[in-house]
Amino acid sequence: MRTDNLSINLATVRQQWNLREAVEACARHGIMAVDPWRDQVAAIGLDESVRAIKDAGVRVTGYCRGGMFPAPDAAGRQAALDDNKRAIDEAAALGSECLVLVVGGLPKASRDMAEARKMVADGIAAVLPHARACKMPLAIEPLHPMYAADRACVNTLGQALDLCDLLGEGTGVAIDTYHVWWDPDLAAQIARAGKAKRILGYHICDWLVPTKDMLLDRGMMGDGVIDLPRVRGMIEKAGYTGHTEVEIFSAADWWKRPGDEVLRTCIERFNSVC
Amino acid sequence: MRTDNLSINLATVRQQWNLREAVEACARHGIMAVDPWRDQVAAIGLDESVRAIKDAGVRVTGYCRGGMFPAPDAAGRQAALDDNKRAIDEAAALGSECLVLVVGGLPKASRDMAEARKMVADGIAAVLPHARACKMPLAIEPLHPMYAADRACVNTLGQALDLCDLLGEGTGVAIDTYHVWWDPDLAAQIARAGKAKRILGYHICDWLVPTKDMLLDRGMMGDGVIDLPRVRGMIEKAGYTGHTEVEIFSAADWWKRPGDEVLRTCIERFNSVC
Repeated sequence: MRTDNLSINLATVRQQWNLREAVEACARHGIMAVDPWRDQVAAIGLDESVRAIKDAGVRVTGYCRGGMFPAPDAAGRQAALDDNKRAIDEAAALGSECLVLVVGGLPKASRDMAEARKMVADGIAAVLPHARACKMPLAIEPLHPMYAADRACVNTLGQALDLCDLLGEGTGVAIDTYHVWWDPDLAAQIARAGKAKRILGYHICDWLVPTKDMLLDRGMMGDGVIDLPRVRGMIEKAGYTGHTEVEIFSAADWWKRPGDEVLRTCIERFNSVC
Repeated sequence: MRTDNLSINLATVRQQWNLREAVEACARHGIMAVDPWRDQVAAIGLDESVRAIKDAGVRVTGYCRGGMFPAPDAAGRQAALDDNKRAIDEAAALGSECLVLVVGGLPKASRDMAEARKMVADGIAAVLPHARACKMPLAIEPLHPMYAADRACVNTLGQALDLCDLLGEGTGVAIDTYHVWWDPDLAAQIARAGKAKRILGYHICDWLVPTKDMLLDRGMMGDGVIDLPRVRGMIEKAGYTGHTEVEIFSAADWWKRPGDEVLRTCIERFNSVC
């Protein structure tokens, strides 16, 4: 079974392994690309993470995550900028191909979505010169509207692409099927993203029915209702030839299974479903 | 405090009262408009429901709900049409000002959203002549994208208005803040809805952070993050002068409180927050 062009977002096995164990396991299964999270890097240290990735010989197709720009005051927003610059530096040290941005939701005690969205645009604009200097593309990830309040006020691919149009060179999008599958405008927006060469990542998992937890009940590809071959068709038609990254948060199911079983299943479903 | 132009969706007190008790309680609190659900009508019978509404002297600003058009086979789709015609007849008997449509999600075992959306358009078109003959406007309610799979594949106001444009006279939209508050295109689409005289209902509640249940954890106005005055501004600017309907599904909170406290709170928050 093919594993080229397959990447594993390391959140998928975060409960089973630390970063070194996870990248070694991926390589053992023939998966030669990963996307680690910052807390996974912090847990073993940046230097050891760089070594582990080099030792395993895997590519880093993305790094999760920067973002979380909105804050109630200037000090909070500045802290977010500083943190994003550190994330960019870490991504560069890891040799990541992009930094994924989960942009943040409403600032505490605010109900002003327009203001939050402006804070996001301003925040990305403020860190973009540093990202460009580090040659680190910023992948804006639109999140499902159910996360609009507390995680990301960029909720459609169209909205993310508007931001890219505004911000220009060095920005792009990460397209995660979980967040965008419902969008009636999806085909047109993926085509738009491809035409503008903005697709920096393609993430997959599945939407379970019922979904029992709004954050931690993502499904393995094939176990839910997302028409993954159809979305892949759109992505390929848009000219994207990069990796497909499996990203599954699953507190009650996949996080409880042996990591090797999870990776085997990812490979099987990547070949049979996606 | 004002109660004119306030309507109570009777799901808000469904655990406390039957339909007769609920409309009597509304009238006692000076709330002279309601929106009952079909199962509440069925529980005491249509004739008794008509009498209870007449006895209390309340208006029926909407009736919940028709819809659920997609089905895996022709027999299932025909059953949905028959059921929708009965819902139209019931709405007419109750003197309702519209029938709210929750259009339905993916048919069982399907992943084809485009097909589901076509079934919805075809289904509404098929019952529209009966609705027109009964002078019963059909209010298409876009539901939050988190319900796309299992409740409604119409997920934005823009999409609902496109359907109205396609189907024409006798169709409109019910705009529920819970479903649409996150939409970056909301102001433009509410203006569009107003211009085309399509706003048949305006429903309010609040989005809680965190939301603990995807269906039954809606908040009382003011307890969440929706900027209700801002949405009201859009609605008024769009020329809507009809009722504002409170619709709260709250298994762990408001459904457990005394009905009179719920209605008192609805009135207070309608005056202070919305």
